[in-house]
Amino acid sequence: MTALHALRTPEPARSLPGLERDQLFARAEAISADLAKRGAELDRDGQPPFSEITELKASGLLNALHPSEIGGGGLDWVDGLTLTRILARGESSIGQLLGYHYVNSQYVVWATEDREKAHRLAQDTVSRSLYWGAAVNPRDPGLTLTPRGDHYVLNGRKTFSTAARLSDWINVSAAIGDKIAQFAVPTDREGYIAHDDWDNIGQRLSDSGSVEFRDFPVSESDFLFAPTAADVPSPVKPTFNTPLIQLVFANFYLGTAEGALATAIDYVRTTTRPWLTSGVERAAEDPYILERIGEFRASLRAAAALADQAALGVQTALVRPNVTARERGEAAIAAYESKVNATHVSLDVTARIFEVMGARATAGRHRFDRYWRNVRTHTLHDPVFYKARELGDFALNNRIPEVSLYS
Amino acid sequence: MTALHALRTPEPARSLPGLERDQLFARAEAISADLAKRGAELDRDGQPPFSEITELKASGLLNALHPSEIGGGGLDWVDGLTLTRILARGESSIGQLLGYHYVNSQYVVWATEDREKAHRLAQDTVSRSLYWGAAVNPRDPGLTLTPRGDHYVLNGRKTFSTAARLSDWINVSAAIGDKIAQFAVPTDREGYIAHDDWDNIGQRLSDSGSVEFRDFPVSESDFLFAPTAADVPSPVKPTFNTPLIQLVFANFYLGTAEGALATAIDYVRTTTRPWLTSGVERAAEDPYILERIGEFRASLRAAAALADQAALGVQTALVRPNVTARERGEAAIAAYESKVNATHVSLDVTARIFEVMGARATAGRHRFDRYWRNVRTHTLHDPVFYKARELGDFALNNRIPEVSLYS
Amino acid sequence: MTALHALRTPEPARSLPGLERDQLFARAEAISADLAKRGAELDRDGQPPFSEITELKASGLLNALHPSEIGGGGLDWVDGLTLTRILARGESSIGQLLGYHYVNSQYVVWATEDREKAHRLAQDTVSRSLYWGAAVNPRDPGLTLTPRGDHYVLNGRKTFSTAARLSDWINVSAAIGDKIAQFAVPTDREGYIAHDDWDNIGQRLSDSGSVEFRDFPVSESDFLFAPTAADVPSPVKPTFNTPLIQLVFANFYLGTAEGALATAIDYVRTTTRPWLTSGVERAAEDPYILERIGEFRASLRAAAALADQAALGVQTALVRPNVTARERGEAAIAAYESKVNATHVSLDVTARIFEVMGARATAGRHRFDRYWRNVRTHTLHDPVFYKARELGDFALNNRIPEVSLYS
Amino acid sequence: MTALHALRTPEPARSLPGLERDQLFARAEAISADLAKRGAELDRDGQPPFSEITELKASGLLNALHPSEIGGGGLDWVDGLTLTRILARGESSIGQLLGYHYVNSQYVVWATEDREKAHRLAQDTVSRSLYWGAAVNPRDPGLTLTPRGDHYVLNGRKTFSTAARLSDWINVSAAIGDKIAQFAVPTDREGYIAHDDWDNIGQRLSDSGSVEFRDFPVSESDFLFAPTAADVPSPVKPTFNTPLIQLVFANFYLGTAEGALATAIDYVRTTTRPWLTSGVERAAEDPYILERIGEFRASLRAAAALADQAALGVQTALVRPNVTARERGEAAIAAYESKVNATHVSLDVTARIFEVMGARATAGRHRFDRYWRNVRTHTLHDPVFYKARELGDFALNNRIPEVSLYS
Repeated sequence: MTALHALRTPEPARSLPGLERDQLFARAEAISADLAKRGAELDRDGQPPFSEITELKASGLLNALHPSEIGGGGLDWVDGLTLTRILARGESSIGQLLGYHYVNSQYVVWATEDREKAHRLAQDTVSRSLYWGAAVNPRDPGLTLTPRGDHYVLNGRKTFSTAARLSDWINVSAAIGDKIAQFAVPTDREGYIAHDDWDNIGQRLSDSGSVEFRDFPVSESDFLFAPTAADVPSPVKPTFNTPLIQLVFANFYLGTAEGALATAIDYVRTTTRPWLTSGVERAAEDPYILERIGEFRASLRAAAALADQAALGVQTALVRPNVTARERGEAAIAAYESKVNATHVSLDVTARIFEVMGARATAGRHRFDRYWRNVRTHTLHDPVFYKARELGDFALNNRIPEVSLYS
Repeated sequence: MTALHALRTPEPARSLPGLERDQLFARAEAISADLAKRGAELDRDGQPPFSEITELKASGLLNALHPSEIGGGGLDWVDGLTLTRILARGESSIGQLLGYHYVNSQYVVWATEDREKAHRLAQDTVSRSLYWGAAVNPRDPGLTLTPRGDHYVLNGRKTFSTAARLSDWINVSAAIGDKIAQFAVPTDREGYIAHDDWDNIGQRLSDSGSVEFRDFPVSESDFLFAPTAADVPSPVKPTFNTPLIQLVFANFYLGTAEGALATAIDYVRTTTRPWLTSGVERAAEDPYILERIGEFRASLRAAAALADQAALGVQTALVRPNVTARERGEAAIAAYESKVNATHVSLDVTARIFEVMGARATAGRHRFDRYWRNVRTHTLHDPVFYKARELGDFALNNRIPEVSLYS
Repeated sequence: MTALHALRTPEPARSLPGLERDQLFARAEAISADLAKRGAELDRDGQPPFSEITELKASGLLNALHPSEIGGGGLDWVDGLTLTRILARGESSIGQLLGYHYVNSQYVVWATEDREKAHRLAQDTVSRSLYWGAAVNPRDPGLTLTPRGDHYVLNGRKTFSTAARLSDWINVSAAIGDKIAQFAVPTDREGYIAHDDWDNIGQRLSDSGSVEFRDFPVSESDFLFAPTAADVPSPVKPTFNTPLIQLVFANFYLGTAEGALATAIDYVRTTTRPWLTSGVERAAEDPYILERIGEFRASLRAAAALADQAALGVQTALVRPNVTARERGEAAIAAYESKVNATHVSLDVTARIFEVMGARATAGRHRFDRYWRNVRTHTLHDPVFYKARELGDFALNNRIPEVSLYS
Repeated sequence: MTALHALRTPEPARSLPGLERDQLFARAEAISADLAKRGAELDRDGQPPFSEITELKASGLLNALHPSEIGGGGLDWVDGLTLTRILARGESSIGQLLGYHYVNSQYVVWATEDREKAHRLAQDTVSRSLYWGAAVNPRDPGLTLTPRGDHYVLNGRKTFSTAARLSDWINVSAAIGDKIAQFAVPTDREGYIAHDDWDNIGQRLSDSGSVEFRDFPVSESDFLFAPTAADVPSPVKPTFNTPLIQLVFANFYLGTAEGALATAIDYVRTTTRPWLTSGVERAAEDPYILERIGEFRASLRAAAALADQAALGVQTALVRPNVTARERGEAAIAAYESKVNATHVSLDVTARIFEVMGARATAGRHRFDRYWRNVRTHTLHDPVFYKARELGDFALNNRIPEVSLYS
């Protein structure tokens, strides 16, 4: 694992509780290394990673961002996003799933003003190691709450719901009359149907199939907020989910590309034959291969440095007591800069590792194309040109992004 | 098929026998359009395209470059390479297989000085619509001829042999003592074993598995040349196989990318939803999508124009009676320029069509990643940086490429 | 001039009058080689190239596209654009000036239906070797014709008017009431004032300063067409000026970049020192330098091949008797593909020649940055993203470009 | 200066003496803003910036890295490199000159074991605000020390010596018999001749002309070390000058590009006209301009984040008591990653700002090409492909860079 090690971004020099943090990072590295070995077969099978999520639960990584007082790891978002990146080095979907869980499980913590509910859910999450998903994609509306007796029933369908079959609890947003309700519910209630219909070219373990709700019972005590009219602007705090989820994206893209580069380095060292006219004895001495690897590294390191810096910015804004829309907007801009940059770099590196590995690296059993397929698939989540446009609008017109689940 | 049509490179304005040529091009277009429809499933199955080769035989396309006097199409290499590109628009491996066949079946025609043998083999090829392969990869030596009675037996193994199970006849080069023999033989002799071991991430229909010879009988009458010492320079004519096969590469890379773009255009028109903040009603009016499609087109058109120009140069040199090594070298440089350029452009376009199609285009059933997997796989045949180096060596030091099966 | 020679695009194999054509090309090559030697000082001085235009007049190159019956060279646009490219290899502005003259002097030939006037102007142009300019930029309106006695007077100002002080005759468009008049006039009439105010970072010899008309007399016999309402669509033929001028752009961009590469090759051969850790004796053997030069060449050759192909398409459409708007549109698309591609390639190559030449090549006396400054300046004529958008609109929506002086 | 401000990299959250540091940064910002206004004329004149260096002396910025106990600013290298970047936003050469001075003036502090000499020179430097240069370029050998009486005389010539006429003191390395001597001397001794022969296309204020020594007196008390044989490996500490100077490069490249982008943003806001077919009222609302600006920002921010991270790594290693060659090597790798990345990004952004500003931005009076000319010139200091190769050698073969003045 020398190659993986060499790529590890130096952890930011911050003073945090020693032991536990180190343990969590060590576990993440170990799980990642194990995933890397099984990456080809995991990609081939493309099944929801039940046992891997179980392992994450056992490792304590799912609770890494919860307060240590209740048994969590007490880490902040800078660490959480680094852990996401580390996992993605081993397997891209697992990185995604960890990062999504962080956002979904923390949402109630930072977003709701009902501190008691937040505390209760957090405790429950930690003590039972719950995995959190969500059903909130705004491009795909259609969930409605209807009163039935003393509660409501939820009906409708979401086309894409990452971790649909893996989630213990989920955040949901749904129409209730002309308002929008947000609530958190366990998935083991009757009427939650996660379909086995995720079969995409990448992120094949992300379990992002459709989910259906049929008279799924919801009570007012599930609500995170009082339902609000769709055109009423949200308070600032809850809107941090978008910059955070976009940083999750950036970090698992980069982790995937870092894993690809580590794989390529190992392959060049052990397997690639020097080219006929290269005049060198080992492929690892080829001038072009050396230069390309060097370029990939430089790009990846810059992208990772920005991801870390943006994470620090968002974390800082998130914990600010009366964070303003402007402050949220500026933190979001940094996150989106990282997202845009990570998109380009990860696509480039994962596509080009083949240049250094050579023709035989296309053998089907290696499935080395999975790195590119993984980032290619998820980097389409929202169009990178529109994200770049938002960055330009900030720089040129001093406009912060209009808040949405994409911005 | 409007999109495919719009991409068609204007045929060069040369005077050739009207009807037959038009028919061959029309058949190529029709077969290509049919392949495009079945592309996803063909890629999924990854089987040798027996029925597709049968269809090519029936269409007359396999004989397109043979003289019309013996029933061939009478076309030249400019046409042959364009037909290769057209087929690759529909399915990349089929384009590759057609181009490889052209080189392998024409080799005996231009390379041997035994005109009678050449004529006989040509007649046989045309009348029986034989598909020609080869077993000559120099990176993978190991075929040897040993005298046995009044003939020889061939033994050894080639790791990659495109069309191994599809070929009726093959060109072979093998060691005979300290010399090299080249011969052409049918594959239905005892001792020809084509293994079913091609399973790569791309060009999955190209049937490029290993082939083994076990006491495969070869007689002197099979020889195309008298065996020569390995260090005796070849005469010039036979060495045209390398620039021609490299032009085959360039053309099926470009055809694959043209096919990818045609698919993307159809998808954007029919399926892609306009982005939330785009302000347009149809994705096909989105400013960024329009611009990207325009850029892809401009790059592809330039690459195709160079491919056509290089083909004309090689064709012209090939038919020159006493073509010199220098003339061959200059024609080869043009071919390799086209190869280098086509490599970059086809990788770029096939990776980026997703940007315009959007997230749902990653659904597994479309297998839209196959375009990129196809060019990614074959563009590693020989490293593009070493090819670029050869171009630089010509420009800087006025050196023509040293002749080999890669140059 | 070996390097320049090595870059020369092979002339298309068309049957044209031998001697005269060869002579014109030979003269263009000779003038270009001479300009290349003086390039640094010409750029430094940045003066209108009076003596160079005089030389072009003497060489017959200004009349290359006029019919041989009246003493012209009888060449077509494919040749004319190649000549433009050849001249630009020596000095970018001179290439521009030749190409602009071709469009401006031929406009009356193809655009007006008054064959007698066209013939008379052509004869005059050839016999007196007139240089033709224009004052028609639509981004900068403001020329008006006002009746005065039996004629009109022209008043107003154009901010940019290439060859303002060099032109013998010019095409002008001006408002006449609510209509637009187009006419051709000599610049030696009273009231033509070409200002000495062109001082831009590139194309410094192009004499593109402002021009002013003060009661400049114009008579109806100068009109090329009857004045038309601004919203009346033009007939098709006259609108070929835009695809032709855009092909002029593409060709002088490429010529400039080809000249830059030739210079870099000469410099590397003669001057660049091998890098300390390169392990080679001559910079011309450096693996990275060789590869970069190879890549530049491949890109330039593809761009030139497309430029040639597009020129053939526009030429073919232009001479078609009843050419339709659709045919014009399709020919224009090919021209604009070439323009877009040439823009990218020429910017890239001219910026990157320094990578192979090394640090000392930045010495001020060489002025090697002029190649980049030249293409950087003119490639902004109209935004490349909007041109790419038009290409996409054709590919996606089957729309031909809306006719304008930019499309 | 809103645009400049928006680009400012968030300062790392470290605890440093408040007031003085803030003052130094505020002065740097103010001087940078003033330089930005005069950038065009400074570039045109291309003179050594005597008055600007005087201003830097008055501001305290020259002493920012010296200990506060002796009157310096007490800042570390992370701050010093950020100050370099800030200055370069205003004028690239001034950023270079500040960074070079930091390395040259600090060299004696960290490199020599003669603490007393180091202290004395530092005190002198601070109290007199001395500007430090150097004459040590290894590509250009030729300085020799010869004994004369009780001292030595220095003779020879250096082709390029940044700040030759600006320097008060310089570091020199010279041959003394078969050994190498390093010493620090004031430039006001007889025999120091700085020639006025720097006239390059970029970094025109950097005063990088040749310097000649004619019987320049040097005494043993000037020596920083006892002379050593050329093949004796240096101790580790002194070799930090290379990673530090390479980080200076990275930071002034990035500062220059940040300045270019700030200029472009101001220009687009105030001057660029919306394109005819854009459908927008202001250029600052153009979708392509917005997207490009966003992309430039994202790339620049990633590059700056890496530069900051690498600076922290080098700073940390530099102050480690017994830093090893391996630790120095790993810190250097991070610095060179930053250098490679900054090279690409700064070249790209400075060349492309024109795309968003439009054609009129090429007017000579703006000299907007200076940003590109500046980074183009200095990024050739050592070939970026060989730097990338070193990064690859570390990643692939676990080799740290071989120590030299380039690595």
